[in-house]
Amino acid sequence: MPVIVVEVMPKAELLDPQGKAVAGALGRLGKDRFSAVRVGKRFELTVDGPVDEAALADAREVAEALLANGVIEDVVRVSEEVA
Amino acid sequence: MPVIVVEVMPKAELLDPQGKAVAGALGRLGKDRFSAVRVGKRFELTVDGPVDEAALADAREVAEALLANGVIEDVVRVSEEVA
Repeated sequence: MPVIVVEVMPKAELLDPQGKAVAGALGRLGKDRFSAVRVGKRFELTVDGPVDEAALADAREVAEALLANGVIEDVVRVSEEVA
Repeated sequence: MPVIVVEVMPKAELLDPQGKAVAGALGRLGKDRFSAVRVGKRFELTVDGPVDEAALADAREVAEALLANGVIEDVVRVSEEVA
């Protein structure tokens, strides 16, 4: 069945302690090419039916209302998964 | 600075209790178009320098070794962020 992917990231202006911790670990391991890391979420919504405009609108609504916490997170992508 | 995105999802054969909980909540809210949900992670690695083959190889190595737990998770994407 088709899948809609929703991606959520912490807002750019907020600290991301989890990302900071990962960035620190990478630095200690010698991967100093990566100067910053941010950690967000990726949701896969399996759609019962076709991925039409209505399904994407539903997914956008669900993403903003439920999957992301609008105070601290932004929805960065809502799109059909490309195989 | 350019960003490499790494996406990690729980392995398909494993239960994902967090995804199950979200799917249940969606059903109760009348969004029964979505029959299943899985929840994974999305990492944004800021690259100090160009995103060349070496940077992507480093990101893939880091993704498999550190960002994903290979026992329960799969790396599903490592690619440069498209703006």
